[in-house]
Amino acid sequence: MSVIGGTEETTTGVLRLRAMERRRLLPYPVVAINDAETKRLFDNRFGTAQSSLDGIIRATNELIAGKTVVIAGYGHCGRGIASRARGLGADVIIAEVNPIRALEAVMDGFRVMELLDAAPVGNIFIAATGSISVIRREHFAHMEDGAILSNAGHFNVEVDLNDLESAAVNRRTLRPNVEQFETADGRRLILLAEGRVVNLGAADGHPASVMDLSFAAHALAVEWLAEQNGVLEIGVHQLPSELDLRVAEMKLASMGRSIDVLTERQRNYLDSYEEGTK
Amino acid sequence: MSVIGGTEETTTGVLRLRAMERRRLLPYPVVAINDAETKRLFDNRFGTAQSSLDGIIRATNELIAGKTVVIAGYGHCGRGIASRARGLGADVIIAEVNPIRALEAVMDGFRVMELLDAAPVGNIFIAATGSISVIRREHFAHMEDGAILSNAGHFNVEVDLNDLESAAVNRRTLRPNVEQFETADGRRLILLAEGRVVNLGAADGHPASVMDLSFAAHALAVEWLAEQNGVLEIGVHQLPSELDLRVAEMKLASMGRSIDVLTERQRNYLDSYEEGTK
Amino acid sequence: MSVIGGTEETTTGVLRLRAMERRRLLPYPVVAINDAETKRLFDNRFGTAQSSLDGIIRATNELIAGKTVVIAGYGHCGRGIASRARGLGADVIIAEVNPIRALEAVMDGFRVMELLDAAPVGNIFIAATGSISVIRREHFAHMEDGAILSNAGHFNVEVDLNDLESAAVNRRTLRPNVEQFETADGRRLILLAEGRVVNLGAADGHPASVMDLSFAAHALAVEWLAEQNGVLEIGVHQLPSELDLRVAEMKLASMGRSIDVLTERQRNYLDSYEEGTK
Amino acid sequence: MSVIGGTEETTTGVLRLRAMERRRLLPYPVVAINDAETKRLFDNRFGTAQSSLDGIIRATNELIAGKTVVIAGYGHCGRGIASRARGLGADVIIAEVNPIRALEAVMDGFRVMELLDAAPVGNIFIAATGSISVIRREHFAHMEDGAILSNAGHFNVEVDLNDLESAAVNRRTLRPNVEQFETADGRRLILLAEGRVVNLGAADGHPASVMDLSFAAHALAVEWLAEQNGVLEIGVHQLPSELDLRVAEMKLASMGRSIDVLTERQRNYLDSYEEGTK
Repeated sequence: MSVIGGTEETTTGVLRLRAMERRRLLPYPVVAINDAETKRLFDNRFGTAQSSLDGIIRATNELIAGKTVVIAGYGHCGRGIASRARGLGADVIIAEVNPIRALEAVMDGFRVMELLDAAPVGNIFIAATGSISVIRREHFAHMEDGAILSNAGHFNVEVDLNDLESAAVNRRTLRPNVEQFETADGRRLILLAEGRVVNLGAADGHPASVMDLSFAAHALAVEWLAEQNGVLEIGVHQLPSELDLRVAEMKLASMGRSIDVLTERQRNYLDSYEEGTK
Repeated sequence: MSVIGGTEETTTGVLRLRAMERRRLLPYPVVAINDAETKRLFDNRFGTAQSSLDGIIRATNELIAGKTVVIAGYGHCGRGIASRARGLGADVIIAEVNPIRALEAVMDGFRVMELLDAAPVGNIFIAATGSISVIRREHFAHMEDGAILSNAGHFNVEVDLNDLESAAVNRRTLRPNVEQFETADGRRLILLAEGRVVNLGAADGHPASVMDLSFAAHALAVEWLAEQNGVLEIGVHQLPSELDLRVAEMKLASMGRSIDVLTERQRNYLDSYEEGTK
Repeated sequence: MSVIGGTEETTTGVLRLRAMERRRLLPYPVVAINDAETKRLFDNRFGTAQSSLDGIIRATNELIAGKTVVIAGYGHCGRGIASRARGLGADVIIAEVNPIRALEAVMDGFRVMELLDAAPVGNIFIAATGSISVIRREHFAHMEDGAILSNAGHFNVEVDLNDLESAAVNRRTLRPNVEQFETADGRRLILLAEGRVVNLGAADGHPASVMDLSFAAHALAVEWLAEQNGVLEIGVHQLPSELDLRVAEMKLASMGRSIDVLTERQRNYLDSYEEGTK
Repeated sequence: MSVIGGTEETTTGVLRLRAMERRRLLPYPVVAINDAETKRLFDNRFGTAQSSLDGIIRATNELIAGKTVVIAGYGHCGRGIASRARGLGADVIIAEVNPIRALEAVMDGFRVMELLDAAPVGNIFIAATGSISVIRREHFAHMEDGAILSNAGHFNVEVDLNDLESAAVNRRTLRPNVEQFETADGRRLILLAEGRVVNLGAADGHPASVMDLSFAAHALAVEWLAEQNGVLEIGVHQLPSELDLRVAEMKLASMGRSIDVLTERQRNYLDSYEEGTK
């Protein structure tokens, strides 16, 4: 039997598959599980958030309350981490490149500023952008002694390790997953989990009770791909929304929660334009 | 000069225009300002939320802290209200018909249940669904004495006024915007602002500092419609995303906030699929 | 019948009565209702907090989300207001003179700084200290155009009105309870409710459902004073703790909440020192 | 040199020392560091809270968001844990025996109920009372399959281990610090860290950046005891408030925070009763 398609879990993976699609290099259809609402709204926001802070705490045993936490990126991961960091008592600063997300962060009560302005006031830095060299030479130059650097985004490229190494005159491992880089002017910058995603590097990754959503979406997507075999064009596809809803329904049922259903009158109303408009 | 198009501000308006579009009754192109991110993410979430609770407080002078607030609907309005009600010290219950939204509410730490189960435990009920007869006969039957009923959604149809009137043996106005309906078994249900949207009925509506976003989007949309004249098909259109971003940029600038921009290396990286994947 | 005592509701009142006591000017015993836990923990924290923000919103129709709110004082009033302001989406800064309270504010996730440093970054200033001339000339000099000044503490002395008047070259009333003071360099500072406590000046004061606690304490205190007549020394007295607990019990009962009671085994354990220590 | 006194860190320790004092069994003066504000307001509230949830997460890798967390006790530990659990996305229920604390929990937006009523709805139970047999036979009988039991209070007596053992027909260790007790009717109750305090049993205990406050208080108390030698009566003493304030000042300074000082005019005002009262 031939390959009939694939499913992709991560934001970064989907970005890459889309880049391949634009270059016509994709060999078969792929379902972007990452973009399913039951993945995107939950795994990235709740799973990454808790486990990243868990990783930081396990590695350092730092108290989050009273700290200034600087988060680069206010996408699903970043906003999840921001909410959890505040929930643990931090003063949270957001750096963003997208003005709409930046404005959302402002309205959510966070301080928003350029990362360069945040560099000297942050105690803990967390990159969650999906991009490269986010926290870099110019930021290291302005950080306070003891600043903690971590990555909750992807790979090990968000904290620029080359820049960090060349800024350091001295480095040593303080405890597992905690490495200290001493600069020429005597400041110590603390890198967690070698700059790899801190929830995998220093904790147990996403809890099972959020991964189950993603895995359910993969399973339903694979079944759907099989059903569609031969029909679906090569490209990056969304999970059909009825499957997305089915994942959420099953999860709610497993948690013993029961929700309302639209009455017939309501269904008609939502489909109409006459009622109520006079 | 002939009509070249329109712009529509509200969720309900857009629902109606889409219904007209499906029936081919729309006479010209319309831009759904409501669906612009700078409208949807802000006006509905922050404007409606604060002003609806403001309306409830002005009408009743109730302390929100310690109350159980039941919100029907976890769309942009509902989640904004939920966040503000919790921020004022309420225990918040969410009723929803969409399982994904319901699951989000659960993960956000709210209790989610059928409205019928929430009826006997709520102190303040707020409908924010865009639908009809959301809080109705069967719910009134199970509410406690003193329950407060309000609408933060649309029109005056979310709290079913016919049902409320027929449930009452007695009604009287307690103070402006506060009407008491006494049931045959002696319970008093309190309706705010005649069931009309409580932020307009009992407070000053959305603050200027959130309406400015919507109005900026209207202005840019009108300019864009004029530029497109003759080209745009009849239908409901999205605000072009670069205009949406422009609104956010102008707002951030007006607040004195400055944000990061992608470096060239980052732009290349986000468009690539080779880097970092080895 | 002669006077047998008094009861005092407010923080400031108790401060004054204690000053009189120290100077032996107090003519009869007084119960400091303000210091009862069912007053202090609730009225000041929940009542003042909600109603002060309510007053600010009614006067100005400002959106609190996205604003920087500076609160002088982190006592019961200040921390209540801080919690509510954050709950409405503000970025909150605390100014304090007591290092323990300041440290608490830091650990609660707020920024703490000298009021002079907060002056140029705040959008809304709220004094809640019980002291005099808290927001004054030197602060006015550094505020941004449009800064809002309010008092949630006591009297009309926390915002220094003399200093404000002498800083202004021009003043006019914008809407009821909103007066604009224009400085020589063209900045407009906005004073709410003539500098009087903004929850009384621009809103309805404390909600009934928090005042009931204080009034219950007064009632029980008066009964107790009558019972003690002739025995109690002249001075400022605490409400006996069993009366304080009785107020809370009655309130919980009125809200339909039922709580646990210690088992006999637990009562013995809490009074012992042998168990569990081996 | 003879013993001149002692210092005691914990709530439970101070309870015991006071019991000894009442029985005249105390051999020398002791300073109740636990009751110092810089201990009580910080260590118990922020240190225990974060590290207890950290312990629960490390042991189980559970997602806290969306869970119902039941906390027995709303003292400093309990309220800290409640705040952090909510901050991680939990729906929090409080059980208390003190009506004032129970009412505070209500006003803070938590559900308050008898532990027996909370038993069937909780996913995670945390005892933080300082008492004995808090979660016991009658509660185990009503819990759902999968309920997690933990102790964040003291010793290993808050979760009644005898009752749990006798309720179980089967027990096995699932992973380190996680033991499953299966009841005759097939429900599995999960005990963490053998019922010992979960922040020490399953995590690293309090972070250094909160313990430094307590240790500073001990150091200053020892110095003070030495200075007072021969003068201080045998008994449990408070840390003098100027030393308590000194600890907070040093901590703020170490965090680079600077606070306001009262002006002379303010000091006079706070000591007066004439001003402002006309």
